[in-house]
Amino acid sequence: MQMKNIKLIIEYDGTAYCGWQRQKNALAIQEKIEDALEKIFGRHLRVEGASRTDSGVHAKAQVASFKMPSYCSIPLEKLIFAINTRLPFDIRIKSAQNVPLEFHPRFDTKSKIYRYTILNDTIESVFDRNFCWFIPYRLNLNLIKKEMEVLKGKHDFKSFQTKDIRERTSVRTIKDIKVLKKGRYIHILVEGDGFLYNMVRSIVGTVVDIARGKLAPGSMKKILDAENRAVAGPTAVAKGLCLLEVKY
Amino acid sequence: MQMKNIKLIIEYDGTAYCGWQRQKNALAIQEKIEDALEKIFGRHLRVEGASRTDSGVHAKAQVASFKMPSYCSIPLEKLIFAINTRLPFDIRIKSAQNVPLEFHPRFDTKSKIYRYTILNDTIESVFDRNFCWFIPYRLNLNLIKKEMEVLKGKHDFKSFQTKDIRERTSVRTIKDIKVLKKGRYIHILVEGDGFLYNMVRSIVGTVVDIARGKLAPGSMKKILDAENRAVAGPTAVAKGLCLLEVKY
Repeated sequence: MQMKNIKLIIEYDGTAYCGWQRQKNALAIQEKIEDALEKIFGRHLRVEGASRTDSGVHAKAQVASFKMPSYCSIPLEKLIFAINTRLPFDIRIKSAQNVPLEFHPRFDTKSKIYRYTILNDTIESVFDRNFCWFIPYRLNLNLIKKEMEVLKGKHDFKSFQTKDIRERTSVRTIKDIKVLKKGRYIHILVEGDGFLYNMVRSIVGTVVDIARGKLAPGSMKKILDAENRAVAGPTAVAKGLCLLEVKY
Repeated sequence: MQMKNIKLIIEYDGTAYCGWQRQKNALAIQEKIEDALEKIFGRHLRVEGASRTDSGVHAKAQVASFKMPSYCSIPLEKLIFAINTRLPFDIRIKSAQNVPLEFHPRFDTKSKIYRYTILNDTIESVFDRNFCWFIPYRLNLNLIKKEMEVLKGKHDFKSFQTKDIRERTSVRTIKDIKVLKKGRYIHILVEGDGFLYNMVRSIVGTVVDIARGKLAPGSMKKILDAENRAVAGPTAVAKGLCLLEVKY
């Protein structure tokens, strides 16, 4: 059967889900979208995502794609509406686009941008409670900026890789890092050509340990060079992480 | 027993609650705070709120007070912490302050500011889904600004009062109105010396009907003058409403 390849941009609040990827005995975002498509097309269509975001991790613009039968002539604007009416309110398709058949949302990725949000204040915010890591200790912002700088470029990020996951290589390139202070919030934006499992969260957990004085200034460089997860800081909580953008 | 009067400023996400006021068979914010105080002080202390926000309505700065036994010498900063650790994450005490015994959060109010938030776009936001009214129709912003102007000042707001509630008078003074556009969002801020039941939501429901062309321009003045709820627009959904500030 002739197929069209449809690229979707998806926003979700990951709080209620086990993450992007379909799993047994747990609710995944991928599954919710595939279920919505099945209701529309009357059969299972597999949806591939750019990033396998973890349980509790959010996305402003996850990219995914699925193959739609060519005979289906539904305008894409109506398709978006049709999917959204069949999705829970914590998942929304933002756009849909015809792309070449060979496009693959994960393999064709040039870079991804993740944002980690810290609320650095004495009292939590009820409105952002699922979207940030609340840290009541005083954090040294300049130290965060300085320590994050050493991660830019191509490195072996073995120190920030959760142990039990095997990848062919733990070398990745971080293209850009931005540390922004907005009121009581600190945003850490990391753009990379790829990320190891829990990499951003391990980096954030480590830089927070430095910024609150638990680890000495200069530790980030030493930890990176050590290529050993045991010397890095803890993995920051999932809910502060959000997939902001996928570039092709 | 000698008592101190403690004024609290409280932030809450009203999504899960029947509103501020304690009710049978439904969960109220007042109840959650009184329960937290009972765990700390070992007995029931009544908490009075400035505004009886409705089910689903939020607050950035609800004001409340309770009488604390004078022998209790807990520093207020520790009291905040003690209450917050006994509250669910959708309610937070932001500040606590000693005030004169005669202070009453509701009777002493000079004015209150409510904010109503509309998301005016073709696709919902998952992150703000509980904090705005999603309106996919195009709204005329200038018309909203113009129509809201006629409400400023002292008027009989009978047209915007839910019928079944009896108050001594339906005359209120609106001190200020601001209509702000921030990206895809429209914020309507209303400051008044007091509000009738559902008044802000009825006003917003009416101005939206005008701004989308269901009611003619100029309708707000006619509806206000009619002093008749039946001629006004619908009551806007609760989740878009937030108590921003209480002035004394």
